[in-house]
Amino acid sequence: MRTRGPTCRTEDVINTSENSLQRHHHSHRAGKLSLVGLGPGSIADRTARATETICASEVIVGYGPYVDCIDDLITNQQVITSGMMKESERCRAALDAAMAGKHVALISSGDAGMYGMAGLAMEMAAAEGDHIPMEVIPGVTAANSAAALLGAPLMLDSASISLSDLLVPWDTIVTRLKAVAAADLVVSLYNPRSKKRVMQLEEAARIFRACRPGTTPVGIATAVGSPEEQVVLTDLEHLLEQEVGMRSVVIIGNSTTCVLDGRMITPRGYYGSVNSV
Amino acid sequence: MRTRGPTCRTEDVINTSENSLQRHHHSHRAGKLSLVGLGPGSIADRTARATETICASEVIVGYGPYVDCIDDLITNQQVITSGMMKESERCRAALDAAMAGKHVALISSGDAGMYGMAGLAMEMAAAEGDHIPMEVIPGVTAANSAAALLGAPLMLDSASISLSDLLVPWDTIVTRLKAVAAADLVVSLYNPRSKKRVMQLEEAARIFRACRPGTTPVGIATAVGSPEEQVVLTDLEHLLEQEVGMRSVVIIGNSTTCVLDGRMITPRGYYGSVNSV
Repeated sequence: MRTRGPTCRTEDVINTSENSLQRHHHSHRAGKLSLVGLGPGSIADRTARATETICASEVIVGYGPYVDCIDDLITNQQVITSGMMKESERCRAALDAAMAGKHVALISSGDAGMYGMAGLAMEMAAAEGDHIPMEVIPGVTAANSAAALLGAPLMLDSASISLSDLLVPWDTIVTRLKAVAAADLVVSLYNPRSKKRVMQLEEAARIFRACRPGTTPVGIATAVGSPEEQVVLTDLEHLLEQEVGMRSVVIIGNSTTCVLDGRMITPRGYYGSVNSV
Repeated sequence: MRTRGPTCRTEDVINTSENSLQRHHHSHRAGKLSLVGLGPGSIADRTARATETICASEVIVGYGPYVDCIDDLITNQQVITSGMMKESERCRAALDAAMAGKHVALISSGDAGMYGMAGLAMEMAAAEGDHIPMEVIPGVTAANSAAALLGAPLMLDSASISLSDLLVPWDTIVTRLKAVAAADLVVSLYNPRSKKRVMQLEEAARIFRACRPGTTPVGIATAVGSPEEQVVLTDLEHLLEQEVGMRSVVIIGNSTTCVLDGRMITPRGYYGSVNSV
């Protein structure tokens, strides 16, 4: 029973009426929902547990492009895909299938628990009284994948902030950016810019520029793990001249971050004293 | 040529004079240094790339207990282990072996680029003019492994702060804790407490308590991925009564974090509006 085809990947193929029907007949056999983080998307960067869970599942639910990343693992699982911004529908479909007794893998890129699907699925299950076993399979989050290609910018304390104001008010995001900039934390910016949303990265750059010199190293990693992967090393002064999109993570260094041999590094601390330990 | 044995795991088995000797004869054949993150330590949570890299390497360098985690991958690689606090010696040994033409895997738990060995190795190579190819193999970092067991506390913006003042001055850490607490960021505390270092977690709890109610959910995950794994869900009021050690990660929720069906969740944002998309 495989409902996936080439056209399903870009369209919402969730049949809501069928799902509603199933929900009335599921009470006697609850399945299991695995919230799986795929890492950056490359096969090599998946964990063994993510791979095994997807192989063992009966139903896979995910955003089309993420399902493409696990093409090598799809045999006879049912696959339900839907488009961007359809997170709630995917969650609902995944919960319905699990309530109907299936082992369901709801996939996210990066880590499922960091800007992924884990929280929404748990919130929805609690709100609607769907008591089913759930597990989170953690994955390599986007900031760590980006950092690995740039050098070692996240060695010490850091923050992750999403510049998307779809779910969090922009005022709150600005407060966080200012606090993190003032406290000299390295920051990873998720969802830094989209075609429509350009102002946010400009404002973030201004906030950090007020606390850090223009020469502060900035790394941009885009589409990590895909054939379009691109890594750029620049600085705060020139950040806004670079190509940045929704598939980018922008890492802004702190006052100690430097570039050595082409690698962006936040030094580990008292190098001298460590060396003499 | 396998230099590892049961006794090597707890002792420093690096022969410094031999390493110095090697350094004078390596100039014509540079190897490669892979900085590998193992994730929490369990085989299942390693990435395929970490596994493949360790299998393909000729020399493995690591802290004893981390080498134990990759026992299944050790065949005829040379294994160099040393104890806690001997990071510089391990780095030096890894660089020396790579400069001597070997493919070396220098292993860290979690992600190699987050409180791991990647930064130190790159700093040291740059400082000493060791020009060798290096790559970082990212892994699932401790905060994400901990979060997965607790529920989904890191769904939105968060910070990672280490309470160890061995490498960063305590004043700087306090400034960061205060900024993060005031900006309503979820925080993951690394190295929260050791036998000797108790005051730091008390002070961190006070700082967060000044900005957040005592009922704020707090999750503690200890020795994740090992047989001693332990997960505790408590709150800010009762944090200091719990068992917390160097193998723990403490996650303090923000003003929206709640516990639903025994799971610690930071809601994804406007659940209602997401639902109606």
